[in-house]
Amino acid sequence: MLHDITITQFTKMLQNLSQCLDKAAAYCGAKKVEPEVLLSARLAPDQFQLMRQIQVACDTAKTGAARLTGKEAPAHQDDEVTLADAKARIEKVIAYLQTYSAKDFAGADERRVSQPRWAGKYLTGHEFAVQHMIPNFYFHVTTAYAILRANGVDLGKKDYLGAMPFKE
Amino acid sequence: MLHDITITQFTKMLQNLSQCLDKAAAYCGAKKVEPEVLLSARLAPDQFQLMRQIQVACDTAKTGAARLTGKEAPAHQDDEVTLADAKARIEKVIAYLQTYSAKDFAGADERRVSQPRWAGKYLTGHEFAVQHMIPNFYFHVTTAYAILRANGVDLGKKDYLGAMPFKE
Repeated sequence: MLHDITITQFTKMLQNLSQCLDKAAAYCGAKKVEPEVLLSARLAPDQFQLMRQIQVACDTAKTGAARLTGKEAPAHQDDEVTLADAKARIEKVIAYLQTYSAKDFAGADERRVSQPRWAGKYLTGHEFAVQHMIPNFYFHVTTAYAILRANGVDLGKKDYLGAMPFKE
Repeated sequence: MLHDITITQFTKMLQNLSQCLDKAAAYCGAKKVEPEVLLSARLAPDQFQLMRQIQVACDTAKTGAARLTGKEAPAHQDDEVTLADAKARIEKVIAYLQTYSAKDFAGADERRVSQPRWAGKYLTGHEFAVQHMIPNFYFHVTTAYAILRANGVDLGKKDYLGAMPFKE
């Protein structure tokens, strides 16, 4: 379950986010706006700008997967500037997530998960995934979407959710 | 797992949201702003206002829980006007979620879940929870938070996430 609700679903959400950036690029073309204007936009003066929301969404998926499975996540430099850079960052993280299989998550629910800033304290993998990783991931994806939406990009809930595997 | 990741965690997030509304009330008092100004604020002209984001977050939790378990959720009238009304709506949904136990979720992963607007098509309960209910719930909670944040309410990520059950 943890593999499916993090790796599989986060991959889908990151793909959706990348497609939202395609719509942002089209919007910038039509409105003759520099894409960097959108990438530096934010909802509040002391909240992260769009590019940082994308980077943190990526890192939440990447480091969360690694922490749940006892692996080491690759470092990314946060040196993205353009929309193409942002999409490439997302692609790198999607490719990294694809290296995980359900087997990697054996024992993940009980694993002790910590972060440097937690000063030696830990959560179980289950607590970490449910109370920290998942809400954080959706927070940053939704905020990225909200910044685009607040700036006039033509997005709707379907762009955020992606296609549903409906059955008849 | 489905009970924990929806009922238990959504309850926590709704409590966090209610506490964000307390901070909004304090902000309105200090700034001499009518709380209804915040409740009618939105991030884009064609996106839901704060009150509606709260109502939809509540409904996503309520109807999602009912659909996953084959129950009927209570109707709420969407007639809230004040911050106190919004908090009372959240409280009603939290109380409803507390009527669920893990046992209610036996077979929920395989249950056929549909909605009137899906015209007879369905998702499995697992697909519905992971790809629809969870991302939708976090979408509306995060957007409610973002509207408050964009309007100057003193909130941070900890208000959104709530306390972590850290162990030493």
